[in-house]
This record gives sequence, structure tokens and C-alpha cells, in this order.
Amino acid sequence: MTTVRIALDIRAYDIRIASGLLGAPDTFAAVASPKGTALIVTNTTVAPFYAARLEQSLRPHFARVLRCTLPDGEQYKTWETLDQIFTDLLRHQCDRKTTLFALGGGVIGDMTGFAAASYMRGVPFVQVPTTLLAQVDSSVGGKTAINHPLGKNMIGAFYQPRLVVADLSTLRTLPPRELSAGLAEVIKHAAIADVDFLAWLEAHIDALRAQDDAALAEAVARCCRIKAQVVAQDETETGLRAILNFGHTFGHAIEAGMGYGNWLHGEAVGAGMVLAADLSVRLGLLAPADAERLARLIARAGLPVRAPDLGAERWAEWMQVDKKAEGGEVRFVLLNGLGRPVLRAAPMTEAQASIAAHLQPSQPQAVPSA
Amino acid sequence: MTTVRIALDIRAYDIRIASGLLGAPDTFAAVASPKGTALIVTNTTVAPFYAARLEQSLRPHFARVLRCTLPDGEQYKTWETLDQIFTDLLRHQCDRKTTLFALGGGVIGDMTGFAAASYMRGVPFVQVPTTLLAQVDSSVGGKTAINHPLGKNMIGAFYQPRLVVADLSTLRTLPPRELSAGLAEVIKHAAIADVDFLAWLEAHIDALRAQDDAALAEAVARCCRIKAQVVAQDETETGLRAILNFGHTFGHAIEAGMGYGNWLHGEAVGAGMVLAADLSVRLGLLAPADAERLARLIARAGLPVRAPDLGAERWAEWMQVDKKAEGGEVRFVLLNGLGRPVLRAAPMTEAQASIAAHLQPSQPQAVPSA
Repeated sequence: MTTVRIALDIRAYDIRIASGLLGAPDTFAAVASPKGTALIVTNTTVAPFYAARLEQSLRPHFARVLRCTLPDGEQYKTWETLDQIFTDLLRHQCDRKTTLFALGGGVIGDMTGFAAASYMRGVPFVQVPTTLLAQVDSSVGGKTAINHPLGKNMIGAFYQPRLVVADLSTLRTLPPRELSAGLAEVIKHAAIADVDFLAWLEAHIDALRAQDDAALAEAVARCCRIKAQVVAQDETETGLRAILNFGHTFGHAIEAGMGYGNWLHGEAVGAGMVLAADLSVRLGLLAPADAERLARLIARAGLPVRAPDLGAERWAEWMQVDKKAEGGEVRFVLLNGLGRPVLRAAPMTEAQASIAAHLQPSQPQAVPSA
Repeated sequence: MTTVRIALDIRAYDIRIASGLLGAPDTFAAVASPKGTALIVTNTTVAPFYAARLEQSLRPHFARVLRCTLPDGEQYKTWETLDQIFTDLLRHQCDRKTTLFALGGGVIGDMTGFAAASYMRGVPFVQVPTTLLAQVDSSVGGKTAINHPLGKNMIGAFYQPRLVVADLSTLRTLPPRELSAGLAEVIKHAAIADVDFLAWLEAHIDALRAQDDAALAEAVARCCRIKAQVVAQDETETGLRAILNFGHTFGHAIEAGMGYGNWLHGEAVGAGMVLAADLSVRLGLLAPADAERLARLIARAGLPVRAPDLGAERWAEWMQVDKKAEGGEVRFVLLNGLGRPVLRAAPMTEAQASIAAHLQPSQPQAVPSA
């Protein structure tokens, strides 16, 4: 088992990475609360595979183990769904000695984390990510949120879990499209922080897509270490942490503009990184060959490298609502060479040029079969 | 002007107490953000009196000053109302350089604070309390929340304001019933922490009800100092801070059992303190004469000293859902002598005996005039 420590003063915690952790009761001994309640928050897709196994592993450590099963999908990352968690907690008279367990992908992790941050002004929670994206990114660092009709992740909290358990064996039930989406965040970590890791990914991208356990363990651990270092220096994103948003200003615009859930977050980040690298080239920061190298790896990961045609106005609108917009300027995370991220305001005309250069060929309308 | 400092490490802030602060632009210089937006959150009752004045005082310090006016009342302390704040923030493309100003009573302060805690995972906020209850209690200490249909203040955050501005002149528009409700929390601070202050209150209760400025300034400052000391030692209510809930376990049950908004929070706490003092006597902690002394002061403040007849089962149910219930036991803040609070689990039978001894005479049903 690999353990990565997130060094956050009194809120420090461990990420444990290995196959089979979910079924081992020892995994959760460190967060035991023999008089307390465990509430597993999961979704209709993940529950049939793993909820019973997690329940069994938690039972020795808690007085009660309850389950709250939510509908699956980004479109349910809303207040209404979050409120189902609160209603369950209150119906079962859960007190402050309750620990929430987020069993699922990024949506479940973000919602469970925000529920834990807000229920009675804060109860403990544990991340049990079952997607690659959640294991390498969203379960680490304490960002929690729900979407608002006017913007993604606009309502949330910085709130750290007590423990993250990344059981690699849960990735076996992950659809290939979701695995690729997770690889987008893996590539992002390499692009912003570690050129050696980028070379390693070029050598192992096929093994990762084939779910080789050793390759997965290595990739998850390296990503968590990179993210841990960044988060330890800037827990609440006042500066440095923004580099983790490489590809995300374009990506969020794609997700929002296409309607949440149509593009997976990782897919939008994949295309978003291609656009951000192109913008870096346009501003004289990155060599064209390096942008091409990155785009090639993104394509090999099974991710889109072209932008949807939202129209220039809607692109601008969605990029401006992004959280990194401050005082009206849109700031992008760009690459001043591979592995060297910079946060910089860029003219909207240049950003639009990057989009225009990477537009998807327009798709023929499907003719309804009658 | 009296300034009370809340010593909370990097989140330390000042409470400024005086008449006329609202109309003085200097009051807000310390939280200026010349490129940022100020959003005043207020309600339909308070806005006509004070919103324009606050806007004028903020204009020199911010690029934009916006206003969000909510309906007035505890029954609107809900997600739906909170969401109006988020929608306004997003519609106006407010970024992280936005400061929220809570202009109103406890409900506005709690909701604005939670909105500030959650919007983009946290933006600054300032409390401008316009009720006595908010000035002596809810605006200080960083507790923010909304209600859930199954429990009061169940969803929220510990989130500190950057500044609290208690303008005593705003109390002139406060209905007498609301002033009395505020006095409940004033009496609470004396009862749990300062017998001298209790004696001072006995001598000045009539001056306070008559809105004598000097008496009000003294009472607000003393309460803030007491609360500041408690909060500085236990920001997130892991122990000591619970003493601030004296009267609140009974009080919350009254509020919830009667339907939010029918009893004012302070009225419920007034009767709740009488019950908690009685329970303290029953458990041999408090002299009967001291319980009577406290009840007399509560009555002189214009507050109820009798409990509504919810029925024993509903009383038990509402007390158990209170946040201080842990592991199934109901814990009360009791008095081990005046000024000496203790947190203790009490048998439900004893709590029910205290309620039974203080039941309101049943009210004759109103006959509809036809």
C-alpha cells in the first residue's frame, strides 16, 4: 500500500492507495467512532458494486451504518440532491458524532464533502473515490461544492476529509470513457509540475488505459503527491493553488455551454488543456512542439482535442463567469514551458483565436428515422 | 466608540459599538476594496430605514454597491431564500473580490454569513446588526446557518466576519417585542458568566427597555466581551462554547414545536432559561432562590417565563434533534450556581418535570366572528 500524507497542520490526513482496500476493515480503523453513526453517500450506479462491501468494513467501527443513495450524474449536483443527504441525516437523528463516507466519483465526493461541511456546521467525512478522476484529483485537497444553474461549483466550501481511500480495484467497473476522463487530470498534473512524469505517461499511457494495476498505483500516487504539495502551500486558493486549474477555464466553459453532463469534466479539461497550451503558444510562452506533444498525449488518452462550437459570445460569457475571473479580467493558467505554470490575464481575442483554431468540424444533424 | 476585539488568530476582527456608525464612511474604511463589489443583503423591513444610508457610506470604498432585499422573517431562513443571494451574485458576475454586508437582524446575519462562507467557497463579509439580539449575540462568533424543515440551524458553517458594526441608533426602529427578545440573550450572557453583570442588569433593565443609549452601549459591549472570550477559546464548539446555548435546548424545542416564527428566538430562550434553571434546581445544582431571581429578571425584560403545551412526546422529540444531543443522550447547559455553567446529560423525566411545572395555562380558543 502507498500512503501519501496531506500536510495541512491540524487538518492533515492520509491518502491510502492499493487494490482491495474497500473490503479490509483495518482500512477504516483510524476513523472509528464506536458510539457514532456512519452514513455512506453513494449513487445508483456505484451502490450495487461496492456499498455492501463498504458497509461490512465499517460495521465493526460504528454503532450504526446507514446508506443514502443519490441519482447518478453531474446534472444532479444540485441543492435538491444535497438536501436528500440532510433529510436522511435529520430523519435518522444523526448528531455531530456522525461520519459521512463519499463512495463514488467526483460528484458524490463534492456533494458529500459539502454536506459534511454544512451539516450542524461540520461533521467528519471520508473520501472513498471509485473513479480515476476522483482518485487523482477531486478527492484530494478539500474542495467541495454543488452547481448553481448559473455556474459550476459556485456554492461550496474548503473542507478536508479525515482520510482518502483509493481502492484501485474499484476502477475495474469504470467505463473506458470515464477512465479516459480521469487520465485528463493525470496529464494535467504532469503538465503543470513534472516533465519526467509526462515522459513516464507517454511510455505508460497504453498500460493505464488497459488498467494495469502497477501503472495505476504509480500514476495515482504521483498525482496525489503533486496535488498534496500544491494544496499544502495554498489550502484556500489564494494564489499557487490556481495552477491546478490548468485547462479548466476553457473546460468549465465547455461543460456549462454544452449543458452539464454532456461532456464529462475530464473530457472538457482534455480539450481545455489543448486550448490553454495553444493560448500559451500565441502569447510566446510555450514552444509549438511542446503544445503538440501535450495534445498528442491527450489524444492517446482517448480524450477530445477539439472545442465545441458554442459561438464566440457564449464562449466569452462562460469564461467570464469562471471563478478565476477577478475584477472583470479573465485569467488563465498558461504554460511558460512544460511543467512551469503561470497565472495570467489574456486578451479575449487571443483566447477566441485558440478556440477558432481548434473547432470541431460541425456535425451533420441526425435524421430521425421514421 | 467602544471596540471589542475578537481574538481568533488570523481571523481576528473588531466589533465597533456606537450610535451613528452606519452613516459614517470611515466606519468601513478597514474593509475597503476599491476594485471590488459590495453586496448589501437586507430585508423588506430594514431596507427602507437603513439601506440607502449604508450604500452611501460604502460607495467611496467599492467599485460597485449592490443590494439584495429578502423577505423578512424566520420562516424565510431557508435554502430558497439563500439561493436568491447566490442568484444575485451570479447574475451580477460577482467574483471573489466581493464583500457581503448583512444589514438586519439574526436571520439576515446567519443567512448572509452562510452565503459568504459558500459563495465560490468563501468571500469576505461584514455584520451590520440592526436588532439588539444580533448586536449582542448572533453577529458575534461566526455561527452561520439556515433552517431545515426538520431542524433549526441544521445547515451552516463556522465563518467569521471581517468586521461587526453595531450602530445603537438602529435600535430606535426596533419594536418593543424585538427589544425584549434581545434582552433574553443579554441576560443569558450574565447568567452564564458574570454575576456582577446580572446585578447591573437588575438595576438597569428599565433603562434598557427605554432605550437609554449609555445603558445599551454598556450592555452590548459587556455581552460582546463575554462572547468574545468564549469564542476565542473554542471557535467551533467542541466544548466550552456550548455554554452559550444556556436555555437553547428548551428554546429550540419551543421554536420548532410552535412553528418557526411564532415565538421569537429570544422569547423562546427566555422561557428556555427559566426551564433550564428549574432543571438545575431539580438536579441539586442551583439554589431555588437563584432560579427565582433569574426568572424575575426575565419577566421584567418583557419575556415569557412559561412553556407552551407541546405535549410530552413532541417536547422530547424536539429536544433530541437539538445539536447538543450526542450518542442519543440529551445534554443541557445547566447552572451550578449563577455564573457557573455546566454541560450535563439529564434524564428526560426531570426535563419533563421542569416543563410540567411551568406550563402556560391553556388558552381559550378564539371564536371566529361570523
